[in-house]
Amino acid sequence: MNKRNLVFIATSIDGYIADKDGGIDWLHSIPNPDNNDMGYAEFMSHIDAIIMGRKTFEVVCGFDIEWPYQKPVFVLSKNMVSVPEKYKDKVALVKGELREVLGEIHRKGFYSLYIDGGVTIQSFLKEDLIDEMTITLIPYLLGGGMPLFSDLSEQLSFRCIDTKIFLSKVVQNHFVRER
Amino acid sequence: MNKRNLVFIATSIDGYIADKDGGIDWLHSIPNPDNNDMGYAEFMSHIDAIIMGRKTFEVVCGFDIEWPYQKPVFVLSKNMVSVPEKYKDKVALVKGELREVLGEIHRKGFYSLYIDGGVTIQSFLKEDLIDEMTITLIPYLLGGGMPLFSDLSEQLSFRCIDTKIFLSKVVQNHFVRER
Repeated sequence: MNKRNLVFIATSIDGYIADKDGGIDWLHSIPNPDNNDMGYAEFMSHIDAIIMGRKTFEVVCGFDIEWPYQKPVFVLSKNMVSVPEKYKDKVALVKGELREVLGEIHRKGFYSLYIDGGVTIQSFLKEDLIDEMTITLIPYLLGGGMPLFSDLSEQLSFRCIDTKIFLSKVVQNHFVRER
Repeated sequence: MNKRNLVFIATSIDGYIADKDGGIDWLHSIPNPDNNDMGYAEFMSHIDAIIMGRKTFEVVCGFDIEWPYQKPVFVLSKNMVSVPEKYKDKVALVKGELREVLGEIHRKGFYSLYIDGGVTIQSFLKEDLIDEMTITLIPYLLGGGMPLFSDLSEQLSFRCIDTKIFLSKVVQNHFVRER
């Protein structure tokens, strides 16, 4: 089975996933009359499960919407011991070393994994566990905020295999790890 | 006359223009058998002059090559009082408030200006003086180094008007300021 860890995320031109106040309204501020999803549904159709951090899980729970995922969600957390009752059939908690967590998820039959949340993506990158990154650049310079990328002990090489412009101003670059 | 301040620069995927040791060898590490210039000559043919910071000037002087510019170069420096003799006919020193510097350069008949060097680009962005940015993403995560962008007091909106892939792995995004 082809085991792949995939990132699909939007950042500002200067690489932030949240602004100085932690806000993400700017992500949805580009007029989008036809609700172009910029490849999200297509991406989601190809993944088996989602791994997200505890913070991202709490952000999703805070949205005033129906649970947005049709795929199994694994929430990485060192400290959570249980998920709120209403999410019990939707998410499973995982903890421990990332390679062990991945082994556990692979054994359940999920191979193509959507890795989401800034802290989680950074943790995966530190262990060179990301295979593809689709990064949608929302064309603002925010001038500060929460960065997608953090320090790494070693350089990682990628290849940009596709690029697209959406809504006449947003650009999406698709990178694949070169090993 | 159409006054424009243009950036044409390469960064890593994580937004660095130099690595943790200040090195830039990675910029030229992608195999490029046909010496594809990724639009540089075309870009240079459309500008009237170059404004660069003192640090970038010193980097260029340190290259073991012929003087690489056919257009007038203005070096921004608070402290330099003269340029080395061998560059006297190639560069002019400018100092002071950026808007005054720009006025002075425009009065000389140079309108379309290539703004180069990290510190200089950051200074121009802080005063919202950049009109276009062509950013070539060399597909590495460096994990640290000298960032292209710095903090800003206000968000700046751009539009990505063009994107291209070079050498099957490098992507170049062209952003235009939306005012």
